[in-house]
Amino acid sequence: MIGEVSCIMENCVFCKIARGDLPCASLKESKRIICFLDIHPVNKGHALVVPKSHVQNLLDADPEDLKEAVMTVQEVARACMKATGAEGFNVLQNNGRCAGQVVGHVHFHVIPRSPEDGFALGWRQGKYEGDEMETLRLKIAENICCSKR
Amino acid sequence: MIGEVSCIMENCVFCKIARGDLPCASLKESKRIICFLDIHPVNKGHALVVPKSHVQNLLDADPEDLKEAVMTVQEVARACMKATGAEGFNVLQNNGRCAGQVVGHVHFHVIPRSPEDGFALGWRQGKYEGDEMETLRLKIAENICCSKR
Repeated sequence: MIGEVSCIMENCVFCKIARGDLPCASLKESKRIICFLDIHPVNKGHALVVPKSHVQNLLDADPEDLKEAVMTVQEVARACMKATGAEGFNVLQNNGRCAGQVVGHVHFHVIPRSPEDGFALGWRQGKYEGDEMETLRLKIAENICCSKR
Repeated sequence: MIGEVSCIMENCVFCKIARGDLPCASLKESKRIICFLDIHPVNKGHALVVPKSHVQNLLDADPEDLKEAVMTVQEVARACMKATGAEGFNVLQNNGRCAGQVVGHVHFHVIPRSPEDGFALGWRQGKYEGDEMETLRLKIAENICCSKR
């Protein structure tokens, strides 16, 4: 379903880091998660939080991995803010080539931000016409447990 | 620490939605979380996952809220992909005005993506010079529990 990002486990750079076969600027490691500085940072202090288990994207991730990942994101973001003096941060998680995913192993970016740091998210606002929003809402809600109909 | 986004609880649009004082295109609701379609979507099917408890940003969020939020993000992303036929998605969580946060109440964006949909993340790659990366790593790691030194 998700546009594939070529990455088999044997050649996966994040699996190699998790196994200790490649070095990294490690910030934290647990049984499930590894966290390290991105070597090509959007801004200084840009960190990656990576579940060790090799899955391509968020849809395939183990729930317990995701829960620990989001706790790690919170802890690492707090530490990055203190260390860099940034005024804000983005958490970004890309799934599929069209969404900007480069390494085909699920990961979260924590990106410290400062005013006028030049990193533009390219935000834009669209809109729904007529009953388009309600039609789409019902279509999505069909696939959600305990959704409101 | 985080650049403030003006939002007091009484006037907070997400608190109003959570209380039922404002309508929304609801996708899912639980005791802790509400999820609904963004009325100004980056792409059609753009959803927001919002812990009901009013905190400004991720650093202040209750860990249990975050764990349930990331589970909801996974479920809603799967449903949005099925409903829209998108080939990928971004999860984006902005903290502070300089990071693009508009509503000062912690929330996660789930944004369906397709090739050439025109939503550019403005990605760029910086680099560290000399021992800059290791110095920053140690500075960040000081504030992380069980970090590797």
